[in-house]
Amino acid sequence: MFITFEGLDFCGKSTQVKMLVEYLKKKNKKIEIIREPGGTLISEKIREILLDNKNSEMSEITEMLLFAGSRSQLVDEKIIPKLNEDYYVISDRFLDSSIAYQGYGRGIDIDFVTKLQKFVVKNALPDLTFFIDIPISEVEKRKNENEIAPDRIESSENNFYNRVLEGYNKIAAAEKRFIRIDGLLTREQIHAEIVKVLNNYEQKGLENLNE
Amino acid sequence: MFITFEGLDFCGKSTQVKMLVEYLKKKNKKIEIIREPGGTLISEKIREILLDNKNSEMSEITEMLLFAGSRSQLVDEKIIPKLNEDYYVISDRFLDSSIAYQGYGRGIDIDFVTKLQKFVVKNALPDLTFFIDIPISEVEKRKNENEIAPDRIESSENNFYNRVLEGYNKIAAAEKRFIRIDGLLTREQIHAEIVKVLNNYEQKGLENLNE
Repeated sequence: MFITFEGLDFCGKSTQVKMLVEYLKKKNKKIEIIREPGGTLISEKIREILLDNKNSEMSEITEMLLFAGSRSQLVDEKIIPKLNEDYYVISDRFLDSSIAYQGYGRGIDIDFVTKLQKFVVKNALPDLTFFIDIPISEVEKRKNENEIAPDRIESSENNFYNRVLEGYNKIAAAEKRFIRIDGLLTREQIHAEIVKVLNNYEQKGLENLNE
Repeated sequence: MFITFEGLDFCGKSTQVKMLVEYLKKKNKKIEIIREPGGTLISEKIREILLDNKNSEMSEITEMLLFAGSRSQLVDEKIIPKLNEDYYVISDRFLDSSIAYQGYGRGIDIDFVTKLQKFVVKNALPDLTFFIDIPISEVEKRKNENEIAPDRIESSENNFYNRVLEGYNKIAAAEKRFIRIDGLLTREQIHAEIVKVLNNYEQKGLENLNE
């Protein structure tokens, strides 16, 4: 089973990934946690190029292609083999982030970004995606509370985040697997919600999730 | 003006690039020679990943995306600025190689490869492309005469080359800028043909090239 987490920066995804992993570990499930970009020898080399401050001349399209190249290798070398061995594969961000951030956020042609992602991901589409939804004002608040300096993307201005959020909402409207969770709930409440949806999914499937 | 050279390995492209550069130098033209993959700081780093023997696990799609990323950066940082400064930009292989080798040769969805390439290249499409056409039997013959060990792609079997050649022929049928030159002529004859086409193009434009 393939589960991904999505949402604006500071929405609390990483905490929820950890809590879900703990929950599944207690149930003795086989788990593979994905880190992007990276996760294979080749993907880690691509990651180095993406994160190196010397590469400030990188165009948005080059960036998108490098993210896609890293993901493509990860899908073939790790995600598909692990899914075939009945692992729970859990990823903090996946194809929807590219569509929301690079398509809607940065303004690269959305049809093209979406096609590129589906081409790269092949049939390794997430079974469930938890979209931890927080308003922009909350991003701003948490950014100011955060003592760690934000990275390049986290420093983006509010207009950018507005477009990304619009992107996530469009994906939510189009994709059944995309489960919106109120990110203003406590971490325990969010976790309980996620576990409830996961159990429903495993018992009833995606079509009857809300019955 | 943007001129690219295409054809099967061992067709004699590199020799023709050199001869054309000499010709243009004598006419005091500003010339930029493109090397792919590579040619910018970021593209050279991508080149290292593509050529490193340690990366034998690289999937065909990852390879395609890395080539595209390298090209995207080259287009933005070098090709478009040089064209804007009235340089003759000359490239040994460009987008058509990706379509012929990766689309037709390796069997990646041709529509997608073509869309990806046009997306990456934007409006920096070649003005003229010289397709030095040789039969497969000639590739085989020159490969055997060649004392240098062939690289990974040059070692491909004949079926692969047949598909690549089919790809080039399809592009030739669709694109006016794609000028077929008989690669079995002598290097001087080929060069003379190229210069003739180039002069015709500069006087009459692409539409009236053959009049």
